[in-house]
Amino acid sequence: MAERVVLAYSGGLDTSVGIGWLKDATGKEVVALAVDVGQEGEDMDVIRQRALDCGAVESIVIDAKDEFANDYIVPALKANALYQKRYPLVSAISRPLIAKHLAATARALGADSVAHGCTGKGNDQVRFEAAVTALAPELTSLAPVRDFALTRDKAIEYAAVHNLPIAQSKKSPYSIDQNVWGRAVETGFLEDPWNAPIEDLYTYTQDPSIPREATEIIITFDQGVPVAVDGKPVTPLEAVVLLNKLAGDQGVGRIDIVEDRLVGIKSREVYESPAGIALITAHEELENVTVERDVARYKRGVEAKWSELVYDGLWFSGLKKSLDAFIEDTQKYVSGDIRLKLHAGTAVVTGRQSKQSLYDFDLATYDTGDSFDQSMAKGFIELWSLPSKIAARRDQAAK
Amino acid sequence: MAERVVLAYSGGLDTSVGIGWLKDATGKEVVALAVDVGQEGEDMDVIRQRALDCGAVESIVIDAKDEFANDYIVPALKANALYQKRYPLVSAISRPLIAKHLAATARALGADSVAHGCTGKGNDQVRFEAAVTALAPELTSLAPVRDFALTRDKAIEYAAVHNLPIAQSKKSPYSIDQNVWGRAVETGFLEDPWNAPIEDLYTYTQDPSIPREATEIIITFDQGVPVAVDGKPVTPLEAVVLLNKLAGDQGVGRIDIVEDRLVGIKSREVYESPAGIALITAHEELENVTVERDVARYKRGVEAKWSELVYDGLWFSGLKKSLDAFIEDTQKYVSGDIRLKLHAGTAVVTGRQSKQSLYDFDLATYDTGDSFDQSMAKGFIELWSLPSKIAARRDQAAK
Amino acid sequence: MAERVVLAYSGGLDTSVGIGWLKDATGKEVVALAVDVGQEGEDMDVIRQRALDCGAVESIVIDAKDEFANDYIVPALKANALYQKRYPLVSAISRPLIAKHLAATARALGADSVAHGCTGKGNDQVRFEAAVTALAPELTSLAPVRDFALTRDKAIEYAAVHNLPIAQSKKSPYSIDQNVWGRAVETGFLEDPWNAPIEDLYTYTQDPSIPREATEIIITFDQGVPVAVDGKPVTPLEAVVLLNKLAGDQGVGRIDIVEDRLVGIKSREVYESPAGIALITAHEELENVTVERDVARYKRGVEAKWSELVYDGLWFSGLKKSLDAFIEDTQKYVSGDIRLKLHAGTAVVTGRQSKQSLYDFDLATYDTGDSFDQSMAKGFIELWSLPSKIAARRDQAAK
Amino acid sequence: MAERVVLAYSGGLDTSVGIGWLKDATGKEVVALAVDVGQEGEDMDVIRQRALDCGAVESIVIDAKDEFANDYIVPALKANALYQKRYPLVSAISRPLIAKHLAATARALGADSVAHGCTGKGNDQVRFEAAVTALAPELTSLAPVRDFALTRDKAIEYAAVHNLPIAQSKKSPYSIDQNVWGRAVETGFLEDPWNAPIEDLYTYTQDPSIPREATEIIITFDQGVPVAVDGKPVTPLEAVVLLNKLAGDQGVGRIDIVEDRLVGIKSREVYESPAGIALITAHEELENVTVERDVARYKRGVEAKWSELVYDGLWFSGLKKSLDAFIEDTQKYVSGDIRLKLHAGTAVVTGRQSKQSLYDFDLATYDTGDSFDQSMAKGFIELWSLPSKIAARRDQAAK
Repeated sequence: MAERVVLAYSGGLDTSVGIGWLKDATGKEVVALAVDVGQEGEDMDVIRQRALDCGAVESIVIDAKDEFANDYIVPALKANALYQKRYPLVSAISRPLIAKHLAATARALGADSVAHGCTGKGNDQVRFEAAVTALAPELTSLAPVRDFALTRDKAIEYAAVHNLPIAQSKKSPYSIDQNVWGRAVETGFLEDPWNAPIEDLYTYTQDPSIPREATEIIITFDQGVPVAVDGKPVTPLEAVVLLNKLAGDQGVGRIDIVEDRLVGIKSREVYESPAGIALITAHEELENVTVERDVARYKRGVEAKWSELVYDGLWFSGLKKSLDAFIEDTQKYVSGDIRLKLHAGTAVVTGRQSKQSLYDFDLATYDTGDSFDQSMAKGFIELWSLPSKIAARRDQAAK
Repeated sequence: MAERVVLAYSGGLDTSVGIGWLKDATGKEVVALAVDVGQEGEDMDVIRQRALDCGAVESIVIDAKDEFANDYIVPALKANALYQKRYPLVSAISRPLIAKHLAATARALGADSVAHGCTGKGNDQVRFEAAVTALAPELTSLAPVRDFALTRDKAIEYAAVHNLPIAQSKKSPYSIDQNVWGRAVETGFLEDPWNAPIEDLYTYTQDPSIPREATEIIITFDQGVPVAVDGKPVTPLEAVVLLNKLAGDQGVGRIDIVEDRLVGIKSREVYESPAGIALITAHEELENVTVERDVARYKRGVEAKWSELVYDGLWFSGLKKSLDAFIEDTQKYVSGDIRLKLHAGTAVVTGRQSKQSLYDFDLATYDTGDSFDQSMAKGFIELWSLPSKIAARRDQAAK
Repeated sequence: MAERVVLAYSGGLDTSVGIGWLKDATGKEVVALAVDVGQEGEDMDVIRQRALDCGAVESIVIDAKDEFANDYIVPALKANALYQKRYPLVSAISRPLIAKHLAATARALGADSVAHGCTGKGNDQVRFEAAVTALAPELTSLAPVRDFALTRDKAIEYAAVHNLPIAQSKKSPYSIDQNVWGRAVETGFLEDPWNAPIEDLYTYTQDPSIPREATEIIITFDQGVPVAVDGKPVTPLEAVVLLNKLAGDQGVGRIDIVEDRLVGIKSREVYESPAGIALITAHEELENVTVERDVARYKRGVEAKWSELVYDGLWFSGLKKSLDAFIEDTQKYVSGDIRLKLHAGTAVVTGRQSKQSLYDFDLATYDTGDSFDQSMAKGFIELWSLPSKIAARRDQAAK
Repeated sequence: MAERVVLAYSGGLDTSVGIGWLKDATGKEVVALAVDVGQEGEDMDVIRQRALDCGAVESIVIDAKDEFANDYIVPALKANALYQKRYPLVSAISRPLIAKHLAATARALGADSVAHGCTGKGNDQVRFEAAVTALAPELTSLAPVRDFALTRDKAIEYAAVHNLPIAQSKKSPYSIDQNVWGRAVETGFLEDPWNAPIEDLYTYTQDPSIPREATEIIITFDQGVPVAVDGKPVTPLEAVVLLNKLAGDQGVGRIDIVEDRLVGIKSREVYESPAGIALITAHEELENVTVERDVARYKRGVEAKWSELVYDGLWFSGLKKSLDAFIEDTQKYVSGDIRLKLHAGTAVVTGRQSKQSLYDFDLATYDTGDSFDQSMAKGFIELWSLPSKIAARRDQAAK
């Protein structure tokens, strides 16, 4: 029996051509695996058939939308994960999920390797391969575009010569990756970081500058997980889909940054993540109400580290797991309601209430009913400032 | 000669009455010191005279607006200082400046103590006293409102009895602190964190929901400091004043959070900081272009710590100084232009350019001219993933 | 029925006198609670009786030695907890345990308050009160020595006048706190930090400078917990007791540092912790073999924070709990044997073996059998250095 | 004119053969550069001549001992740099120094590349190349042992065939790197981490188990730098040389750990660093006396990060520089005397005194003269514990 390779298949040009290239270059049978993470676009059955038409011995489609929401988006939300304070890790959290299915499929079908369509200068190649190796260290990772120098021109030629069923009549100028957590767009003119994005780039979000009425919603969380919107129970996936619509319609979630890639270069990226920005905004404020100060302060560093690890492809690493244990423990009381006003590109919290609130009206109020014993402050300040005071005496003696 | 106390004087009811209270309670002569940090409102000469009318032996006004911008706002900007990711430390950075002048004045005039009008449950009492003790450890700090239980009702009565020149005819429901970096508002109905802020709270910002044309500006930084707006040279103070106008007119810079006070309670706070949010947004993105990845990642933690220290009243502490040394070193190349679009409550970067840019078009482009050697990636990923791979082998053996 | 207070009772002068003082000052009935954390010294029954003789309405002794080892020492060991890199938190981890029993006893007996014998300038007052308030926020904490200015002279006089059964004929110059995890000594001449400790201070450790044969032992850990010594199964408590003997006889575990107290001052402290130093040394090296690099690097920061929190009295805080969740997750594979050579004040690891080892001979060896693909290094170094390279080009252009 | 390559030349087999290999493989002229970092062993003139005899067109020796001490050891000491808490970065700090001279020599002589003798699985290849690229990004790095698969057997054969003047009659079983800051030893039997080191491995340290009299010395620091020993002024280099002798004679400074290499594997390493361990021990305790608590706590994390960066070859990176700025600022007051007792493998501080001390006898003493106001503690503890108290109330309500 021939050796087998399981290819992460998108239905696009590169991976369609990759089927033949892999077979030619390695002699292996190619199994195509398409994972539905809510990327929308083409029908998954059409994609499945295309792989077979392109020469795959087997073509598999997995609906992983709920798994993606439950096991990848929810942890990112609990971590308030924003790489460089801004990027909600859209592609970064889908890669380990796809890699997990690649590895499982490879093992199930007795394949000795997996493959992906990434180039050699991006982050996704690292995310795929690091995830595969962390789950199935015996598997080899292949990357036809990178390792066999499969350029776009060569791919188009190969598709024409082999009569592959891929329409390339009208080449889109955009390179896009999208899933239910968001959308990443790259295109030539954005490579000059002085150029502003144009409206044509966006599909998850409406133009925020168009006047419209604000939308106000109430998101209910239970232990860090969104469980209802405006009182209606939702699964995590439903929450994300609904928020993409509501926040996206208000132009919420556009991101435009120069980003530090793991491979050592800076790149300019444009993202849309309406649900991501809206949910993280709401979740952060609910934490403000329900999480102790010291936990919140320390968690800020954990969130940054978590985001870096996931950005850097280390989803299945030991450190990521141990940080998850920390984060999970912090979410015990992150339950309650957040009122969010969505308008003109902004998601603003206007109210928060929780049975688990640490906000204590009697301590906080300046009105009658104040139970805060102000006389305690004097001693507190004295000892709080004592190290500075001793140092000040020393400094003056030194002068 | 009688002992003297230097009182941080605002011109308001509490500190006006405080002059007499301090004198009565301690027998000391009271010197009033009003520091202009761009709080606007009443004429500083009127304030100066009022202190005398209320019984101060001396009344001093110091224009510290440029000092505030240069030595307090600029370091906060370099630190991208946002406490709890949101609050630009509006009051927190003005207190140490005022405390510095309190201490200097006390020493110059031979006073043995200073005083402030803060209550015993807020952060500002700590900021004043910790700063004073770090600069002049021999001085004692007095807080009539806190230590002598000077409630508002008693203050009004005292003012009436002593015929003090303070109008209290129309009591504002708002408790406000403001300076050129922003404005903090507290008021009774906000003490229920489910209540949304109302438009009436705001004065630095216009209603962001009113349709208007976007404003686009270019801010030029030199080593982290804003030096020009739309090509016109500005001092830091001028930059802040200008941005308050431009960003404020677009409703940029409103903040509404539940905040962790140093004294151990959570409180609900509403702020406006148009220039603060606009400048930090611009500065952060310029760092994305000009600062190395590892520096940026580490600096994120330093920024959080810096913000906590300053929030906690430790401006003049040793750790704050050493963090400043770190931050200063990171700003060497943070020079260039940021194009900012201000609209409907948002400040969005749409372009960045810098002679110090680390963005390398030839490495980043996917077009012809690409100088990135993709074959390097394979070895990188192999070693990058090696710890996970070894651990994976161990884990599987353990099963 | 009279109100009750539960006093943490040591059997010494301060807390013996404290029984009467508390009664006199508050009118409450005093319940004495002595907790055995392996402090040795007097028989616990004698101590129990003494409390009654001094006026306690009830006197309770709890043997908490195993609880202390399992629930307080083991977490400290997993955290490699060394405050200021040196101090194994001897007293710091016993206070929350005692406080836990104080709170439980108070609740069981319907007391409204607890009390302890600490002064007002140490850490232990904070540890007691912070722990009690975190477990039973309704209880009040009393501290007769601090709050009623109960000096030693007054205590001796009180004991004499009231004919309390406490021998003070030969006053020890040492102030001592000890438990099975170690011993803390303070005494007048050590308050000059230039003075060296003298041999007379120590009881857990022999003089390390006396020539003797080295001791070699093998400690077996299971998931971070010591489970056998030289192949003989032990409970955590037995491991600590045994190591105190073996390491103490070799003079291992003496510590002499200037320490940063929570209350803002520096103090000079001398400790002994033979088992502490020996076990942490062994545990750290077993982690070196079994824990992934990134986990180990991050854990170093967690360990420092954990140690600070516990030192600072925040054992039952939310952050401490969440850090425990992180640490627990890192210990999954920390199993195996450590050979330790104890001699002349040193505990040195000379061998380590583990079925969970991440040390891979085939990858590490320079001999035949080497499976490390050295050609991978070139690509790794290229991308690893790329940010520095790009920055270097920029820096040179800037010159 | 032929192209040139500057080779970091040690005088040993690999780099001697490397001269010919480089010439054969690249056609370049080879310039040999030997840098004296206190590695002792052969006379540097003999080494210089050998390079010429092996075919170098030019052979240069640089005495960098003082530069190494001043610019590399002193910063490591200020950082208390111990990778994995144990390893004083012996080789890690010498590589950037050598790389600096490689780059400078290459530029001075118009060479287009540099070379080193490292293998492809260690850290030093990264340190050399990362340092060179950060200083002279236009230079290429060559590594004959790694890139041309120059094994030891091939090297011996090459030396014999070409009659190179390198004695290999008695092959040492040890692979050694040493400089004035310490010594690293690798050898076959140590690759089993259960095997204990043998006495024969060590040359910088005497057997600590041999009974001998303790040595007591006083080290004086000025702003973190050792400036005198027993009152006699010393340069940093002299301090290190002297301490190597004094501490080495007492067996101080032996280290045996399993270490996490940058290239992703664990390796077992044995080091000696008598001066390193003695000086860091002394410096840490002087910091305990002279540095504020918050600075010390934060610096612990900075030290760990600094050590990781330097271990990982990033000496000349932006982050390392910015951390240096932080550290430098913390050393302002680290001046004073440390009394150190060296004996039987231990370096123990027995006294510390400093005009910059923050230890305040009047605040610390329990004797008469105590100036600490204990009544302040009550308020401090109340507010310090308030977050825990509020959380405790919430937790109980939740039950």
